[in-house]
Amino acid sequence: MPHITLVSDEPGIRGLFRFRPEMARPLNELVEALLRADNTLTRGERELIAAYVSALNECRYCFSSHAAYAAAQLEGGMALVEQVREDVGGAPISPKLRALLGIAAAVQQGGLRVTDRLVTAAQEAGATDVEIHDTVLIAAAFCMFNRYVDGLGTIAPDDPESYAARAKRIVSDGYLALLAESQRKS
Amino acid sequence: MPHITLVSDEPGIRGLFRFRPEMARPLNELVEALLRADNTLTRGERELIAAYVSALNECRYCFSSHAAYAAAQLEGGMALVEQVREDVGGAPISPKLRALLGIAAAVQQGGLRVTDRLVTAAQEAGATDVEIHDTVLIAAAFCMFNRYVDGLGTIAPDDPESYAARAKRIVSDGYLALLAESQRKS
Repeated sequence: MPHITLVSDEPGIRGLFRFRPEMARPLNELVEALLRADNTLTRGERELIAAYVSALNECRYCFSSHAAYAAAQLEGGMALVEQVREDVGGAPISPKLRALLGIAAAVQQGGLRVTDRLVTAAQEAGATDVEIHDTVLIAAAFCMFNRYVDGLGTIAPDDPESYAARAKRIVSDGYLALLAESQRKS
Repeated sequence: MPHITLVSDEPGIRGLFRFRPEMARPLNELVEALLRADNTLTRGERELIAAYVSALNECRYCFSSHAAYAAAQLEGGMALVEQVREDVGGAPISPKLRALLGIAAAVQQGGLRVTDRLVTAAQEAGATDVEIHDTVLIAAAFCMFNRYVDGLGTIAPDDPESYAARAKRIVSDGYLALLAESQRKS
């Protein structure tokens, strides 16, 4: 049960967006810029970073959501997302993405855990400075979203289908369009 | 030295805003809504929560910045900010603010660390659901900002005067106005 009285029974962060729309707007603009705007990292790769950090933070709602969004936009689908969660070293991903996930894991522990060695390894695997920047910010942002969702005790549905259905809408329309639709309904 | 090649020598998050203005806009809209928009928590109280979480994350740039912004807007000034950092239990603050800082400290550890007991204690000390929500989101957001700033190895000036000078501008004009001014200059 959520720690505070929300104004709807929408799960996870969606109930928080409804409770405090003033904050929902910049949060959705951020996630749209991070995960969907033009980038040399694909949308699937960026959602995978978000899902991976959410798994490390043990945030069930965010992991289930972004795992579904990643799976819908990666060739390997949910099997690949689960492989990355269980054993990032052995998962069939590019050396560049593996190195970026290493940076993301360090960020999850704390900003000071990101070492020159990790950054150099990513650069040697072909990562650009913008890709390294965006990986750090995606990982940092999910350290926020995960804490927001769980710090207020929101509900995470058990049904994988609910996340898969949402994934279809995120892939086709994006975060801001879904937020606007939800706000029109309220 | 920053981990990546930034396009300016501006310190801390300001160099990152310059490097990636697409992200700077929603990040500044978020912090303006969290720390400066109308709220039953004062601006000084909200900056104090931001500074306290930044201290727990050992982010020198963010702590120095938000400590200065809090000090400029709290009667107790920097002495109070330092007292809260060193011994929140003994600092001369309201029971409500002390309880909210307890929630913020739990969020810093992880969203699942926020217990019903902590939330009930804040409610019994007079905190509203919106105040509890905003405290969780401020604490979560600084877990992002701290990781962003330190995860990219940005520079934190040593000179306290540079933070105090910035504080005057933040207090009078706010985050979005300073961002717009900086972007006009570039």
